Amino acid sequence: MLILNNEEIESLLTVENSLVWLEKAYREQAEGKAVNRPRTDMYLPSTTEGGVYVFKSMEGGLQESKVVALRLNSDVIRWEEQEGRVTKKKDPVAPGGKWVGLILLFSAESGEPLAIFPDGVIQRLRVAISSALAAREMARKDSSVLGLFGAGWQAGAHVPAMCAVRKITKVQVFSPTEARRRSFVQEMEKKVGIPVEAVSRPEEAAHDADILVAATNAITRVIEPEWVRPGIHFTCVKDCELGEETIRKADRVAIHARNFAPENFIAGFGDERIAAHDPLDYLRAPRGGKPARAKPPFWLDAPELKDIIGGKAQGRGSPEEATCFINNIGLGIQFAAVGAGVYGEARAKGIGREIPTDWFLESVHP
Amino acid sequence: MLILNNEEIESLLTVENSLVWLEKAYREQAEGKAVNRPRTDMYLPSTTEGGVYVFKSMEGGLQESKVVALRLNSDVIRWEEQEGRVTKKKDPVAPGGKWVGLILLFSAESGEPLAIFPDGVIQRLRVAISSALAAREMARKDSSVLGLFGAGWQAGAHVPAMCAVRKITKVQVFSPTEARRRSFVQEMEKKVGIPVEAVSRPEEAAHDADILVAATNAITRVIEPEWVRPGIHFTCVKDCELGEETIRKADRVAIHARNFAPENFIAGFGDERIAAHDPLDYLRAPRGGKPARAKPPFWLDAPELKDIIGGKAQGRGSPEEATCFINNIGLGIQFAAVGAGVYGEARAKGIGREIPTDWFLESVHP
Repeated sequence: MLILNNEEIESLLTVENSLVWLEKAYREQAEGKAVNRPRTDMYLPSTTEGGVYVFKSMEGGLQESKVVALRLNSDVIRWEEQEGRVTKKKDPVAPGGKWVGLILLFSAESGEPLAIFPDGVIQRLRVAISSALAAREMARKDSSVLGLFGAGWQAGAHVPAMCAVRKITKVQVFSPTEARRRSFVQEMEKKVGIPVEAVSRPEEAAHDADILVAATNAITRVIEPEWVRPGIHFTCVKDCELGEETIRKADRVAIHARNFAPENFIAGFGDERIAAHDPLDYLRAPRGGKPARAKPPFWLDAPELKDIIGGKAQGRGSPEEATCFINNIGLGIQFAAVGAGVYGEARAKGIGREIPTDWFLESVHP
Repeated sequence: MLILNNEEIESLLTVENSLVWLEKAYREQAEGKAVNRPRTDMYLPSTTEGGVYVFKSMEGGLQESKVVALRLNSDVIRWEEQEGRVTKKKDPVAPGGKWVGLILLFSAESGEPLAIFPDGVIQRLRVAISSALAAREMARKDSSVLGLFGAGWQAGAHVPAMCAVRKITKVQVFSPTEARRRSFVQEMEKKVGIPVEAVSRPEEAAHDADILVAATNAITRVIEPEWVRPGIHFTCVKDCELGEETIRKADRVAIHARNFAPENFIAGFGDERIAAHDPLDYLRAPRGGKPARAKPPFWLDAPELKDIIGGKAQGRGSPEEATCFINNIGLGIQFAAVGAGVYGEARAKGIGREIPTDWFLESVHP
């Protein structure tokens, strides 16, 4: 069984091979040859003040690649209000000030575990690549200006991903912290070799942009309804970055996945409140009460990315349409696709550490 | 991070310590301090003829022990008809003719992975120990004759478990294969030091028994309604071994857990059939059709084991009552409880192999 680290994964992963692997997975999904076990989040009180412990997991399997991936996160998180916005933070409380996110890869032929590796690099890229695949199908062919919100981890992956599917000539980036957006500009210009401009007000990032990307950790609206002009394409890493009002401005909407657990949030805080769809619904519910059941968002019937990739739904109807891709929830098959790709590359190049597979097998009937 | 094997786990695990660990977990669950992520089964076609590949997982967390366990199985299974009964088989198709079942243990304080080990030994014992805890609360105090159906893995664990909670003086065992039940008798007599008798007809196992245990791999009825007499206690490892008619004969019913995924079976067989509660419902549904939605069984409102352990429901009302415990579905907290116990024992005794925890941590934000 192979152990890889993030540096090794980064050396094996390119925007180009990820686009190929993920596109193939969505085609399999469109053909009904892929399976996803929706993400669940299991909460316990944390010993870290102000934090809660969460164990998150999702799974996906691909019939043609004959792999299953399990992706898990074991984290202490907190919600913080920062410059008027509520953000979700993960505290690095594991030894050495680190986080715990893992992908376990299994063979769907022999059942055996093939590899375990951290999820950070893949996690970032698969979100951006899925958004880029959607943009390839939905954005105008002549899109050239990218307006970006956020200067973190996810935002950094979206720049090269969008540049790989459209001839982007300029990036306009807004993030609340000036120092942050400045260092982001330097990093990105080096990476993609086109002008990247930091702006001090969000509307400047949106100005004249053909594609708008919200890739922040905000859990409140980032893209304003009035920025949605004819011909634009806009996307996000969480639907709350858009909000209903902004999404309603789009002429055509697609989502990443419809299939998610009805109550994917399960808590063990020793009270009578029960599982909910959103942890904030839970935390806001009165003790002894039940969280309000959020009604499904109006856009949940929109075509999924697989429908567009698989040719069952149209990405764009005319140059004037405003299109929106809601990267609403992750799918296990993203990890299966990229994980299997990375595993194959690592095997071919002899990269990684080997531990005995036999440690993870048993001659006792399970 | 610690790696243990089944032999090491077996050396650390006793009926007595497992009873303590599991009882504590059910008390935590009764207090709302435990979380369970219901089991899901994700299916893909198998390259093994007549088999299907299934990736099964469940999770559980305990607030007081500060652990989370993920239990997974990556198997090729098949359904077979054997002597008029449909049974489910797991093919050992992993290298060396082995199976793949794992428990991953995490700290709910630091998030870090603590251990990985195979599930076989724990899997068997936790089922039997939960049934024994139920019998301790529900069976008559003077129960002395145990009627057992099955002579396999699960049956073998139930004998010492039941002997630990009631003064059993005789075991009557039926299983369809004579050779199998004979070797079982020898093994069990050595283990529990009381007479174990193999019988050739199922009704002989039930004759004059105070406790009936079905611990088979049958997915059809094993315990007949007419065997349910006043004062008896009966149980199973799957509700189908009892069936509605037999369960209705009980004056009092308890179940292991009510909370399970509404559609825990998710398939990727490239057709229009959708997720179902039971894989057989799926396989029997016509191509292009939908599996019939099985209506919830009548006993799903019965108290759960945690309610009885936690004192919120009564186990037995009178010596004349016939009581029934339906060990209907596994819970992640069983693996968290026994897993944490085994991990603590292994650490205390210096057992197992160590691999660097740092391999499973990351400094990249997940």
